[in-house]
Amino acid sequence: MPAHDTPNPKNPPVDSPAILVVGSGAVGGFYGGKLARAGARVATVQRSDFEVIRQRGFAIESIDGDFHFTPHEVLRHAGEYTTPPEYLLVTLKSLPELDIPALIRPAVGPGTVIVLLQNGIDIEEPVARAFPENTLISALAFVCLQRIAPGRIRHLCFGRVTIGLYPSGASESVQRLARLFQAGGVPCQITEQPLAARWAKLVWNAAFNPVSVLAGHATTTEMLAMPACEQLIIKIMKEIVDVARAAGHELPESTVADNLRATRRMEPYLTSMALDHMANRPLESEAILGAAIRHGERHGIPTPCLSGLYAMLTLLTRERSKETKTTV
Amino acid sequence: MPAHDTPNPKNPPVDSPAILVVGSGAVGGFYGGKLARAGARVATVQRSDFEVIRQRGFAIESIDGDFHFTPHEVLRHAGEYTTPPEYLLVTLKSLPELDIPALIRPAVGPGTVIVLLQNGIDIEEPVARAFPENTLISALAFVCLQRIAPGRIRHLCFGRVTIGLYPSGASESVQRLARLFQAGGVPCQITEQPLAARWAKLVWNAAFNPVSVLAGHATTTEMLAMPACEQLIIKIMKEIVDVARAAGHELPESTVADNLRATRRMEPYLTSMALDHMANRPLESEAILGAAIRHGERHGIPTPCLSGLYAMLTLLTRERSKETKTTV
Repeated sequence: MPAHDTPNPKNPPVDSPAILVVGSGAVGGFYGGKLARAGARVATVQRSDFEVIRQRGFAIESIDGDFHFTPHEVLRHAGEYTTPPEYLLVTLKSLPELDIPALIRPAVGPGTVIVLLQNGIDIEEPVARAFPENTLISALAFVCLQRIAPGRIRHLCFGRVTIGLYPSGASESVQRLARLFQAGGVPCQITEQPLAARWAKLVWNAAFNPVSVLAGHATTTEMLAMPACEQLIIKIMKEIVDVARAAGHELPESTVADNLRATRRMEPYLTSMALDHMANRPLESEAILGAAIRHGERHGIPTPCLSGLYAMLTLLTRERSKETKTTV
Repeated sequence: MPAHDTPNPKNPPVDSPAILVVGSGAVGGFYGGKLARAGARVATVQRSDFEVIRQRGFAIESIDGDFHFTPHEVLRHAGEYTTPPEYLLVTLKSLPELDIPALIRPAVGPGTVIVLLQNGIDIEEPVARAFPENTLISALAFVCLQRIAPGRIRHLCFGRVTIGLYPSGASESVQRLARLFQAGGVPCQITEQPLAARWAKLVWNAAFNPVSVLAGHATTTEMLAMPACEQLIIKIMKEIVDVARAAGHELPESTVADNLRATRRMEPYLTSMALDHMANRPLESEAILGAAIRHGERHGIPTPCLSGLYAMLTLLTRERSKETKTTV
């Protein structure tokens, strides 16, 4: 480990599994770095910024203290990784055009635990089907990160993760990963119901993410400051709560109020979807809105707000790609 | 009239009243030109493009045949008009920041008939209150016009107007204006219920205008091609129909279906609000959405779609003005 890397001062290494992070943007760089600080041998597969990361690693400016992360190896493809890792952490965006089983298959061994640290719902099934013998961990990050330059990440707020065995239950692999996160300084909660946790997180994401994009990259503060927009946010959240219930995940009655209260306490926050839209990156509309709408259809729960937002987002991003084409 | 002006070949002049057009963008230039072709002495008040219009008049490229319109006079302010006109035609955008009574007051004489050729609802009352002795005509244009350069207007489709005495009824002033429009080649329908006509037009405007903006300047064809977006359009239209009914304007039961069918028959159409947004001009959100939402509140009719769109449009345009500021 080069001298400029920063081991976690409070928690000495407890364990040093081999971890491969696939999709090492801001989320992968940040959590990969945290796991490295816990002592894990963390390699990364870079879809972008390969040369910079290989030469200089990740520089992370964090509210919890800046740190540096030099991956054990930096690869272009999972197939370049020689021995199957103990954990394979997927931190790619949840996009329908990404065939995650195909992307990770070359690196998955019989004992590899696959961890999906991604947004949205219904993201596990294709991976579970492709690797029926592997342990699958479903994980959620509650964090605000920005990639500010190649190899440079800004950590603005939060940071905790929630992890659980897919589709439910507990296992030693989950416990071990939780200890690693904790040792790296990441608050980590274990849940035996990771799917319910996904729906709970979706309540926030499905409301603030699309509205922030359509409203011209509005912050959470701007959205909640306008009563008509707050009403829209509440209606969207209630649609998710209703669909979640129909899908078998009863969320606490206070979910909507809790989300609003927590968001009001936050600094003005630009959602990840707004950041993606500003950077002309694809949006996680399918995993965040499309999947919820399909659950609603299956269970006869109307989702007028979700459907309307989904329609406008789809048209908006189609229009953007046209604009991009015409200006090239 | 200079040689390059084009009198209407089919309909010889029938009448030559003095008409002052206030707010002579695309709508004012087009309809002012049509009334001039009918023989009226049409002067214009230019908020923009003053020098160009005074030197060269308006060049109108129309699907019905190109024509040129040289105003009788080109003024900067209504106060420069010496004798009160017989008709004062307001073709300004319906924006809360425009004080129309103040803008037209210097030119309004005791016999001046004021004609509001504008979008939205609830636009007449301030003018009626300011000029209680004047005849007020409420008018709607069904037309697609673009200002393509200073003094140059493109007429893409439609063109008819509907006019009626405010708040209701008939009068010789209405008949005479209708004859002028017809003589100028503009199909003109007289209605004794212009407010109901406004609500009927609002059904289309409240749906397609905001969605086209939020969906990244989507055309009508793009919006209707996507089932989720068509559903959104239908929901918005139904909200307007419900609010209109509560406000005392029962629209035909087939209104929504008629609007959809007519729109499907149109060429791909970019709404005026999308054009305004692309040109960074203010949007008619208040007259098109805000007023309908307030009627809904007054009558206890829920308007979730209208309110949500209104909220996002308001945030979107606030964001735009910020962006504009930061790039200056």
